[in-house]
Amino acid sequence: MVRILLTGYEPYGNFERNPSAEVALAVGKSTFGNCQLDSLILPVSFRKTFETLRENLEKRGRPDIIISMGLMPFASSIQLERVAINMKDYDGVPDNEGATPQDEYIIPGAPAAYFSTLPIRQIADALAKEGISAVISNSAGTHLCNFIMYNVLHYIAQQGWKTRAGFVHLPFLPEHVQKLVHRPQNTPSLPFDVMVKSAELIVQAAAEVVSRKA
Amino acid sequence: MVRILLTGYEPYGNFERNPSAEVALAVGKSTFGNCQLDSLILPVSFRKTFETLRENLEKRGRPDIIISMGLMPFASSIQLERVAINMKDYDGVPDNEGATPQDEYIIPGAPAAYFSTLPIRQIADALAKEGISAVISNSAGTHLCNFIMYNVLHYIAQQGWKTRAGFVHLPFLPEHVQKLVHRPQNTPSLPFDVMVKSAELIVQAAAEVVSRKA
Amino acid sequence: MVRILLTGYEPYGNFERNPSAEVALAVGKSTFGNCQLDSLILPVSFRKTFETLRENLEKRGRPDIIISMGLMPFASSIQLERVAINMKDYDGVPDNEGATPQDEYIIPGAPAAYFSTLPIRQIADALAKEGISAVISNSAGTHLCNFIMYNVLHYIAQQGWKTRAGFVHLPFLPEHVQKLVHRPQNTPSLPFDVMVKSAELIVQAAAEVVSRKA
Amino acid sequence: MVRILLTGYEPYGNFERNPSAEVALAVGKSTFGNCQLDSLILPVSFRKTFETLRENLEKRGRPDIIISMGLMPFASSIQLERVAINMKDYDGVPDNEGATPQDEYIIPGAPAAYFSTLPIRQIADALAKEGISAVISNSAGTHLCNFIMYNVLHYIAQQGWKTRAGFVHLPFLPEHVQKLVHRPQNTPSLPFDVMVKSAELIVQAAAEVVSRKA
Repeated sequence: MVRILLTGYEPYGNFERNPSAEVALAVGKSTFGNCQLDSLILPVSFRKTFETLRENLEKRGRPDIIISMGLMPFASSIQLERVAINMKDYDGVPDNEGATPQDEYIIPGAPAAYFSTLPIRQIADALAKEGISAVISNSAGTHLCNFIMYNVLHYIAQQGWKTRAGFVHLPFLPEHVQKLVHRPQNTPSLPFDVMVKSAELIVQAAAEVVSRKA
Repeated sequence: MVRILLTGYEPYGNFERNPSAEVALAVGKSTFGNCQLDSLILPVSFRKTFETLRENLEKRGRPDIIISMGLMPFASSIQLERVAINMKDYDGVPDNEGATPQDEYIIPGAPAAYFSTLPIRQIADALAKEGISAVISNSAGTHLCNFIMYNVLHYIAQQGWKTRAGFVHLPFLPEHVQKLVHRPQNTPSLPFDVMVKSAELIVQAAAEVVSRKA
Repeated sequence: MVRILLTGYEPYGNFERNPSAEVALAVGKSTFGNCQLDSLILPVSFRKTFETLRENLEKRGRPDIIISMGLMPFASSIQLERVAINMKDYDGVPDNEGATPQDEYIIPGAPAAYFSTLPIRQIADALAKEGISAVISNSAGTHLCNFIMYNVLHYIAQQGWKTRAGFVHLPFLPEHVQKLVHRPQNTPSLPFDVMVKSAELIVQAAAEVVSRKA
Repeated sequence: MVRILLTGYEPYGNFERNPSAEVALAVGKSTFGNCQLDSLILPVSFRKTFETLRENLEKRGRPDIIISMGLMPFASSIQLERVAINMKDYDGVPDNEGATPQDEYIIPGAPAAYFSTLPIRQIADALAKEGISAVISNSAGTHLCNFIMYNVLHYIAQQGWKTRAGFVHLPFLPEHVQKLVHRPQNTPSLPFDVMVKSAELIVQAAAEVVSRKA
């Protein structure tokens, strides 16, 4: 049995919906072969988001895989994040509590970065085989998405767990684009169904690698 | 019975596949309610493309709807073209015969532009309802895509037909993006299945408007 | 003596500055060889903008060249507009009076489009020679910018004037990008000085063509 | 006296010019207050580029500041890189010797990342004050640019030097855009003069911080 935790974020900024939460909930209810899935919605708050996740890990126990997801406005495709950096910068978008950190370390003295331990190349190949565009991205930004990815990987390293973890950015839903004012003439989005299918393929590709190594 | 002709283009430039031809062929074989579908692959040649289409119209007779499709590299979504202009300009990409027209009228003395007679707003709404992002675009460029759209609308006007016609641009397939060298970090694409589904919805929305008016 | 009128737009939407008005005012005070320059700031109002320009033309007399300018959010470079279409659509951004026209003709029964009568290819070459990126654009949108371009060209045609006219889109200033929330990771802008220099080159290239033909 | 080394890259891929080399050479000949400038053109080769730089450092001695520059195709503005990661991936573009590393550590066992030690926030502010758009970027990619930045920062750390170092990405020159085939409709570029002025401002802002701390 492979235990997998999916996380997504609540809405923030001007956006009424955050596809990451909806995809996490939708896929968290699925069953694939030997996978036991769970999902968790995180607050868009530098102060609270990792606390919420850590409490969940303590309560429910160590998963084999943690796949966190978030919205990347204006992304053109699914982004499989390669690395999380020890940096927080609100970059013009305050979190839901109004926090606006700039050029600050997430954890002073901790490593500058952690690489994702998800099999991102295999995942990209699995998505490509199904005709879905996904890129390996070299920056998860400096907002909540990078923040949770960094904290999770640092925590796993501190605990000495074998849990694999990483982050996936989702682009806009079509309705986000329709509601934007002052947008580029051509702003990309992905239908919700394709996002759900992508997340399922990501879960399966990750589970397969973990099972094979076990 | 609503007679619908779908056209797509053969591959050109560095691209081994042109999704517009593949989508036209795939959807041309479908049957929807009272629609009789037909498809035609056009050459990427300013000299031959409209001749090919006109011969087809003379041979097979007047359709009720002509939906032409083409590839728009780097487009972020399905583009429903609003207008075709009386202008050809190769804009850095020669056609498959090496033609490189610049700043030339398509038909000297003919109107500066024709508006699409497809129900593009209803089509956009129909796609949005299915979660697919489509935009009404105000430029089909000055290449073969604008060229066929202009020629078809001018021909219909000259013939005095009631046939409705217009043009739909498709973005890259995921495999196009993977093969690009020197691409923007985030280049959009659409899975082939979503393109086919979109074209089916476009056909249905167009047929419905024609049937209602009949 | 070549009489040239430059127009720009007042600020609109979330933007505190509109570079088109500032560039029109800055360049309108310049003197180049045999050019007599004038500038006019137009309201961002479908109801009032062409009236304002027409009254000005009646009061000050027929210019030889009318160069209208406007802001194109997210444009990557100076855009020399090739064509204006007989269509208004607010596309999600109401004008400063709250008007939200959709899919409406500007002047029902008038031609579908007018081509710019500015020497846009020569202008593009003149800018390129100075190392400034400018593109010939095939759509001025369906907002105020296309609206004034269409109205001016239609008016000139109706009056039987020889006046040349067209439209130039300016990208963001750097400060616009800094103030954007939820922007693409990489949003282009142009320094104000480069915009002014570009407008001066545009004026000179247009004046040269008019003088040569006179 | 503040000793500053500027590096740029030779041309690569389809590009006949690499503005980073030309800017390094142009600014390397300048004199600003107490700065002693030097410049070095590096080969686009994973095998040779850092060797070339290291030999230069051994020969000419330790500089106070190393500012490396490179071309980022399709970037919209000057990018001040925040971080270099321990990863090389050719991402579809082989180096000039045909090397195509994928998902490889630059130095196995070395830290996952190093942060730039240039005062990137002050530099961004200095550029903004002059009306030039510059962004703090959170990824220098996984190609030669990230590679040299990582190697330089690792080398400085190993040597125990106080030298500050970092990387600046330059966008296309206007002529790059004109020569592109199959480009996005709106591809950004920066005039060469603006690049040189930007590099001068970067040098001055960096030198000022170093002088103040001395």
